Amino acid sequence: MNLKKLKRLLENDNHDYREKLKLLMSDPIFTPRFELSLKEQRNLAFTRLQKLFRSGMVDLHDFETDHRRIFALHDICGLIDGSLATKLTVQLNLFSGTVLKFGNRERWQRLREQANRLEAVGCFALTELGYGNNAVAMETEAVYNHSLKCFVINTPSTLAQKYWITNGYCHAHWAVVFAQLKVKGQSQGVHGFLVRIRNEDLSPVEGVTIQDMGMKMGLNGVDNARLWFEQVMVPRDNLLDAFSTIDDEGNFHSKVEGKRNRFLKMADQLLSGRLCIASMMMAATKMSLLIALRYSQKRKAVGTDGESSWPLLNFELQRRALIPLLARTYALSFALNRAKNEFSFVENSREQIINCCAMKALVTWHAEHTVSVCRERCGGQGYLAANMFAEFLAGAHAGETAEGDNSVLMQKVAKELLSGISSVDLLRMKSKQYIGFKASKLTKTEEVLRLLHKREDILKAHLALKMQKASRGGKEEGFRVWMMEESETVQGLAKAYGEHFALQSFLNILQEGGDDPVLAKLAQLFAFQCLEDNLTLFWEQGLITRSLAKSVHMQVSKLSAELVPYVSYLLDGFNIPEYLIHAPIARDFIVFNQCQNDNQGETYQFSAGKGTMPEILSRPQLSYSI
Amino acid sequence: MNLKKLKRLLENDNHDYREKLKLLMSDPIFTPRFELSLKEQRNLAFTRLQKLFRSGMVDLHDFETDHRRIFALHDICGLIDGSLATKLTVQLNLFSGTVLKFGNRERWQRLREQANRLEAVGCFALTELGYGNNAVAMETEAVYNHSLKCFVINTPSTLAQKYWITNGYCHAHWAVVFAQLKVKGQSQGVHGFLVRIRNEDLSPVEGVTIQDMGMKMGLNGVDNARLWFEQVMVPRDNLLDAFSTIDDEGNFHSKVEGKRNRFLKMADQLLSGRLCIASMMMAATKMSLLIALRYSQKRKAVGTDGESSWPLLNFELQRRALIPLLARTYALSFALNRAKNEFSFVENSREQIINCCAMKALVTWHAEHTVSVCRERCGGQGYLAANMFAEFLAGAHAGETAEGDNSVLMQKVAKELLSGISSVDLLRMKSKQYIGFKASKLTKTEEVLRLLHKREDILKAHLALKMQKASRGGKEEGFRVWMMEESETVQGLAKAYGEHFALQSFLNILQEGGDDPVLAKLAQLFAFQCLEDNLTLFWEQGLITRSLAKSVHMQVSKLSAELVPYVSYLLDGFNIPEYLIHAPIARDFIVFNQCQNDNQGETYQFSAGKGTMPEILSRPQLSYSI
Repeated sequence: MNLKKLKRLLENDNHDYREKLKLLMSDPIFTPRFELSLKEQRNLAFTRLQKLFRSGMVDLHDFETDHRRIFALHDICGLIDGSLATKLTVQLNLFSGTVLKFGNRERWQRLREQANRLEAVGCFALTELGYGNNAVAMETEAVYNHSLKCFVINTPSTLAQKYWITNGYCHAHWAVVFAQLKVKGQSQGVHGFLVRIRNEDLSPVEGVTIQDMGMKMGLNGVDNARLWFEQVMVPRDNLLDAFSTIDDEGNFHSKVEGKRNRFLKMADQLLSGRLCIASMMMAATKMSLLIALRYSQKRKAVGTDGESSWPLLNFELQRRALIPLLARTYALSFALNRAKNEFSFVENSREQIINCCAMKALVTWHAEHTVSVCRERCGGQGYLAANMFAEFLAGAHAGETAEGDNSVLMQKVAKELLSGISSVDLLRMKSKQYIGFKASKLTKTEEVLRLLHKREDILKAHLALKMQKASRGGKEEGFRVWMMEESETVQGLAKAYGEHFALQSFLNILQEGGDDPVLAKLAQLFAFQCLEDNLTLFWEQGLITRSLAKSVHMQVSKLSAELVPYVSYLLDGFNIPEYLIHAPIARDFIVFNQCQNDNQGETYQFSAGKGTMPEILSRPQLSYSI
Repeated sequence: MNLKKLKRLLENDNHDYREKLKLLMSDPIFTPRFELSLKEQRNLAFTRLQKLFRSGMVDLHDFETDHRRIFALHDICGLIDGSLATKLTVQLNLFSGTVLKFGNRERWQRLREQANRLEAVGCFALTELGYGNNAVAMETEAVYNHSLKCFVINTPSTLAQKYWITNGYCHAHWAVVFAQLKVKGQSQGVHGFLVRIRNEDLSPVEGVTIQDMGMKMGLNGVDNARLWFEQVMVPRDNLLDAFSTIDDEGNFHSKVEGKRNRFLKMADQLLSGRLCIASMMMAATKMSLLIALRYSQKRKAVGTDGESSWPLLNFELQRRALIPLLARTYALSFALNRAKNEFSFVENSREQIINCCAMKALVTWHAEHTVSVCRERCGGQGYLAANMFAEFLAGAHAGETAEGDNSVLMQKVAKELLSGISSVDLLRMKSKQYIGFKASKLTKTEEVLRLLHKREDILKAHLALKMQKASRGGKEEGFRVWMMEESETVQGLAKAYGEHFALQSFLNILQEGGDDPVLAKLAQLFAFQCLEDNLTLFWEQGLITRSLAKSVHMQVSKLSAELVPYVSYLLDGFNIPEYLIHAPIARDFIVFNQCQNDNQGETYQFSAGKGTMPEILSRPQLSYSI
């Protein structure tokens, strides 16, 4: 397959838009900087965000015309700066997206337009300190006062403070605040309210306390805040009223029955948010692999002649560690693209919801694992901030537990998969019709696909029957079995679903995109890697013979070795332009390390000649004393 | 077992000394700080180092009386600050230890004493940019000039710059510089030279160029430098001359034959260095588990009643993730203690060398994995710098590839294991006498131990026979098979050895320390976890039946659940005093998050009342503008 076609396949959509975005990122403001204070990091992330919005390439209304443009934007930002991408996703998806979806269209037109130009900065105040894992039980209250025609928003306890609020500590004027609505003494569940939290001069409005969450593992350009509301009054119109309203007589009306459903409805942007997170993480994963593999092609170690003559990629240790990750990156990219294509801004089917959750979890776990392995396989060089793994690793960790802890999302996936089982299915499971398949050979990737499907079916059947039995003991017993006995199966089922989905997506691409021997081999490697990682399960279920199992390891090694000559081609497929690759070990690390190049670990001097940095970011003179 | 006994078992040695060190660390200078510039971080690490040396509790000569005191010192520092521990280990073990071992005893007495009081700061200039993985081939030259009676030290190329030199950028006066010694035009291999690199006023001496390596993934209190030497002259006496000398006629003499052997001899402190690294990493692992498990005991999520009523540790997901890590931490601690006990400052047997290498690799990998899982299982809270995982994770990454990339050390372990095989052994292997064992039940931990031993034997036999066959094709063919075909077996064998050693060490402790049902259960969990992680291998080798394999998963889950009531006891066993636990989630995270406690993510205000921070570290006023 020619390279252009490969790039387009992997990118999926909005090719011209992506090129323009990348070109924008060639501006020196987007060159990575490292030795910055917290304040400078936040200012830098915001300056980058401004640059992005001022380019005219960010538009909230893409959600309604082509939501994939929004994800494409996250892809490109994820290549460059996780802090920028995080501030972007909160402004564009969580804040503006929620206003677009649930705010009165005419009433909030001006704010929407301001937000769309970043003249108004917003945040999304959902999570509370005590209820990150149980948001529906949040404590923050919005009590409707009919005589004043306003809501009084209050933080009743320490556990009720809004926590982790991105854009909150430095930049946000507005917040979508989620709170338990109380009307005429009655609780109506969680609703969203547009609350002004800062005045024009950026001082907090009266009654709002904003505190800094300080240093984090990474993404320190993101200004996370803790927020308290002390009897803050907001007009009746500020209720996001797409499904719930309060009439002139002060009566509450809602199109949605039940508090839990209202909460789920309001938190809807978290679903696209998961695709946003997966998009940025996938970009960081690609960049990590590009950096590590390029270094592995150049960096020399002791070869057969006893000299430093062998590139690292000659060694099985290096190939075996990195090439399967490249295969999985391709597979998950195709799967994520499918989830993006099928996603809808308006309404999503159970399958689409499952795919968003499964992909967010698998992609962010894969990101963490990949970056971690890349770092280790690059040794000390991988430890330097300039070589980018540090920030990517921290970003991946954030991705794993933000907008739904991965393991909890996997529980959701498993639960939804079970709820799709009909009573006929259940009968069939009971008669064990799912069992009784044994792979005799695994020459074709399709045969592995079938095996992955079997694994999913078996786990589903096991879990469905267990839960059916448990349900006889009542709801509590069901909860207990799910949470205290079957959590390995729950996680395993969701993973099995996700990997089957990924391999299927890869094979679809091969079928539609025309046969390509290198991609076919890559798909096969991914397939065997899924087998290898879970070989015990296939064995325990009697799905595979011992001799076949042994061949799986050999296949992974063999395919990894065979793909070495195509590494550059596959990395080029990521379509990352040279001018966005800043890591010295992905470029000429010897030049970077020349004595005359006293860069103090920064890359901006190395890739110099593009103008100077803004004053706020200039580096203090170094002087040390002991 | 009473708690006191447990603590002493786990600590192994120097209990009073450890208590005094911990008490020293209660000084507010050791309270974690987060929002600091690179310069402040380096000054802080050095100030802490000074405090430590001035306490009179650091003594180089412990190497000769009780080397375990040196490791104990690393244990305690590792609990607190990886940067401090790293600067310490370079000053004490690599620099001073090398001077002690190889420097002329009388001639360098003054420097040794100064270094022992930190009045002279040293660094260890071994690694070069191009030869981190092949140090014996380093390029830096020391050419002996007989008329001047001095060595001329020179950095001939960019790849020859000394790289990663801890203490180099800010603080070091002296360096042990490793260079290819040339006498009368002849190369005599790598030797060490004492080179003054800074003047009293800390300016670099003429001919020495020192550059900053800048920001890293973590350990940013460590001032890593790049060093160049331009015809720097050092007197003849500065050759570390324990085995090689130059006589008055300018002739070279050495007690050690062969360049490679001379290099290995000179780099001897790397061996104790590995135990130092393992010690600090083990401490960080314990602290991480303590933080994560305490939080898991307190933090609530949705329980059977639908309220936030269940502590996280009620959930199988949390137990299954964390409790086996606790078991492995105990096992590796006992194994590391054994390696420390058996280590000798003077001369080490093959087995001792193997144990140092295997333990360094297994402990640092375990540290990275543990911290990473702890971070994830603590969700967003785990992401805050104040909760310590960020720096521990970065420290573990450094540990994995410093002083020998773990995978390379594992190669060394495997190589040494093979070299211990006699021809009789090899004959026995050929007749497959090692094969043919099958576990029928696994009720006792000793049975698992036997299985782990079998795994080691089988891998060893497989590899030995492969290598014997390959050796017929010549040295190059042997290298090729080792590096390009059998790397999975090589790594697997070393891991099998290490895990068997760890379980054996654990069982020895149980046998000697008196039976304790909780510890016995913990050992069993570790044993089953080793099985579970490698189940495929046991199956493929026919060592275990399918039904037994299934029981392994159940055992791990069951034992994890059964150990939950003993978590506090097992954490208390770490003997970490409350005053050294700074992470808010391991204390009262609700108090930490009170509105009136505007701590900006720092813990020092939270654990206040212990005096103020030094001026250099005071925090700038915050003011943001957009």
